[in-house]
Amino acid sequence: MTLEEQVLERIKPSPEEKKKLEEIASELLQKVSDAAKLLGINGITPKLVGSAARNTWISGTHDLDVFIAFPESTSREELENNGLLIAREVAKEGQNIEERYAEHPYLNIEYKGFDVDLVPCFAVDSASNIKSAVDRTPFHNEFIKMSIPGREDDVLIMKQFMKGTGTYGSELRTQGFSGYLTEILIIHYGSFRNTIRNVCNWKPGLTIDMLEHGILKHDDPLVVIDPTDPKRNVAAALSPNQFAKFIDVCRSYTEKPSEEFFFPREKEPMQKEEIIDMMNSRGSSFIAIVFEAPDLVDDILYPQLDKMEHSVRALLADYDFQILNSGYWAKEDAVILVELISSELPAVKKHMGPPVWVNEHARGFKQKYENSDELFSMYIEEGFYVADIRRKFPTAKELLVERMRSCSLGKHLSKAVADGFTIIEGADITTIEDPDFRRFLRKWEQGK
Amino acid sequence: MTLEEQVLERIKPSPEEKKKLEEIASELLQKVSDAAKLLGINGITPKLVGSAARNTWISGTHDLDVFIAFPESTSREELENNGLLIAREVAKEGQNIEERYAEHPYLNIEYKGFDVDLVPCFAVDSASNIKSAVDRTPFHNEFIKMSIPGREDDVLIMKQFMKGTGTYGSELRTQGFSGYLTEILIIHYGSFRNTIRNVCNWKPGLTIDMLEHGILKHDDPLVVIDPTDPKRNVAAALSPNQFAKFIDVCRSYTEKPSEEFFFPREKEPMQKEEIIDMMNSRGSSFIAIVFEAPDLVDDILYPQLDKMEHSVRALLADYDFQILNSGYWAKEDAVILVELISSELPAVKKHMGPPVWVNEHARGFKQKYENSDELFSMYIEEGFYVADIRRKFPTAKELLVERMRSCSLGKHLSKAVADGFTIIEGADITTIEDPDFRRFLRKWEQGK
Repeated sequence: MTLEEQVLERIKPSPEEKKKLEEIASELLQKVSDAAKLLGINGITPKLVGSAARNTWISGTHDLDVFIAFPESTSREELENNGLLIAREVAKEGQNIEERYAEHPYLNIEYKGFDVDLVPCFAVDSASNIKSAVDRTPFHNEFIKMSIPGREDDVLIMKQFMKGTGTYGSELRTQGFSGYLTEILIIHYGSFRNTIRNVCNWKPGLTIDMLEHGILKHDDPLVVIDPTDPKRNVAAALSPNQFAKFIDVCRSYTEKPSEEFFFPREKEPMQKEEIIDMMNSRGSSFIAIVFEAPDLVDDILYPQLDKMEHSVRALLADYDFQILNSGYWAKEDAVILVELISSELPAVKKHMGPPVWVNEHARGFKQKYENSDELFSMYIEEGFYVADIRRKFPTAKELLVERMRSCSLGKHLSKAVADGFTIIEGADITTIEDPDFRRFLRKWEQGK
Repeated sequence: MTLEEQVLERIKPSPEEKKKLEEIASELLQKVSDAAKLLGINGITPKLVGSAARNTWISGTHDLDVFIAFPESTSREELENNGLLIAREVAKEGQNIEERYAEHPYLNIEYKGFDVDLVPCFAVDSASNIKSAVDRTPFHNEFIKMSIPGREDDVLIMKQFMKGTGTYGSELRTQGFSGYLTEILIIHYGSFRNTIRNVCNWKPGLTIDMLEHGILKHDDPLVVIDPTDPKRNVAAALSPNQFAKFIDVCRSYTEKPSEEFFFPREKEPMQKEEIIDMMNSRGSSFIAIVFEAPDLVDDILYPQLDKMEHSVRALLADYDFQILNSGYWAKEDAVILVELISSELPAVKKHMGPPVWVNEHARGFKQKYENSDELFSMYIEEGFYVADIRRKFPTAKELLVERMRSCSLGKHLSKAVADGFTIIEGADITTIEDPDFRRFLRKWEQGK
């Protein structure tokens, strides 16, 4: 049995598991029709979409996406009201009912052990005429159901490969491959193996346009024209780094395939001594900004953490601190961790002035610094005035304490930081004992 | 009495001093004629050139330039042989006779307290047809003698101003203003004061072409077309920094004239404690390369020191050391002194690899580092492989000790460095006790 067959055996739903899912799905579709009838809402069509409808779901995942399609002529208000009415009627038999929001509200419920989304949408005539973002999904569903038969197992293996290598999922935290994108790749390349083989030679700017109907230029590293909508890049959410990482893991897998790619061992949290050894052997300076993580969904929290990491890097670089690496982590607390060449700089800072021959500026520069207490020395270098002056922030900590609040941060993190933060450095970082944080630190040990 | 009049009083030769110089000059010209006659060499003309001939010499300087002009048809060999024969005959009555070389040999002698150059040249018909570099001088002499009368005092004041501010002299150590260039500026602008006033607004690219006959483009910051040769820039030897410095001092003088510009107080050598205080307050790292200075004339030694300073800076920068300032100094020992942000770097160094999608390079990079003892961690950043590896030279001292000899150095310094050098750092630099070196260090205190 090949490695991939072994993997498939672990992830393919059994006939019983499948039968169960199909029964529950039918029940739910029926309940949607019944609810509509009961409420006197006409013209809707219930649809099962997503991986459950396409036979591309991995054993153990019990997600059902039930769409409630309204005629295109329905007003948005009517769709929202009547959609939620139907969903709430169905939800009466579920648990943990939660109203969620995409472009418009929908319900997430637990029903007989399944995680069910009940999503109103417009039944438009083509994916290029959608009225709401979710309207596209039924078209994706039709296209995959039509094209995938016979290759479902390859999708399963690929999804597991991506999960194991951290490249699966198009949400903002991961910025990897969506289920639909994975399915399209398998359809395009024909099989798991052939996809892997081809990815090894991917280069940025690659366009996959199966129907040869793409009509827009995209700047993304990978462009996969949506078979159901020529204007859309299915891979728009894929970050350049995940694109690169996927190429890298496909090559490594080709060179030396192993089960580890699909089912990696969970990393051990680093021990205190390991962390201190790691820092000492690198000899660089570690500094962490710690604050209470606001209670937000991942798709809002992680982009803001990402933005904050960039702002902090820019702030440090502006004040001459040289950055080696950085990262962020969040649970109850959020941590932005930065590794610097040094967290201390000499008191003196070289401040470049205007060229001597620009009379006005030259006069202003000389007047400003000549008799300043901040001046060490002033001289001319390659025609420019240079003032060696006292550095405002000789340590990264002082800089962050004084200037973090004026960084450009996302709305929620800006508030969180304003409420208070602490800066911890070096060995003190081991006071953060959360095992997940200690796992996150392994990226300094063995690569991201 | 104005400041400038006071200065003039101190530097203008007295009638007696002038009479003495004229007598000695006449004597020497006569001796050249006599020697030629005695040796049976016909057709030569002795000429007094230089500031002595133009009345633009400063009291106390006793330099005489006596040119021995040969007919243009003379061969170079004949000129060299007969020129030296005549010079040696004249030199019989002088002391400290020394053979020196420009494009061809000449004699430097001491004669009745005067420093005399006896220089053979070709009497060509125009400065644009010279056969040897020195042939131009008699034309300069004629032009200045014709144009300067009435403005000699302004030349004297300007020369003293340039001497006092360190901008006088076109030799390679100074790269400032030559005597001829100074005279031309005074002729062009009419007076000392008007020159100062105009220089305040100089900008790079300025061309002064009094006869409007310039025919070549020059890249130098200042272009002064030689009135006797339209192809030549009289200011070719002026460095961009001296150009800028001259603008700066002219502006400062305009704002607040003082005797200091003409007769600056000599700097005090820095005391040991002052040096240590200076280093401590700046907080940066000072490192000096010390070696025996080869016995060379300034015009050979200083360009090589300059080149060495640049090579050392490039070497340090290549290995990630950040330079604040540097300089060199030479007497019996030569010293290249560099001020760094820090002379120590962490063990870890970020080594950028190829983009992931360049398959061949990517493979090579991963293979090279993946199992290396030098690797801390490998990861992908913005699509590129990055290896955090062990830094080869974590201190500037180790780097210089190991790699100085492979620096691109001038011929003579290359040998001197190969013969041995020492690296001293921080407070140990105070072990260099030469007062001139201690004066040189003041540039870190109060500007270059």
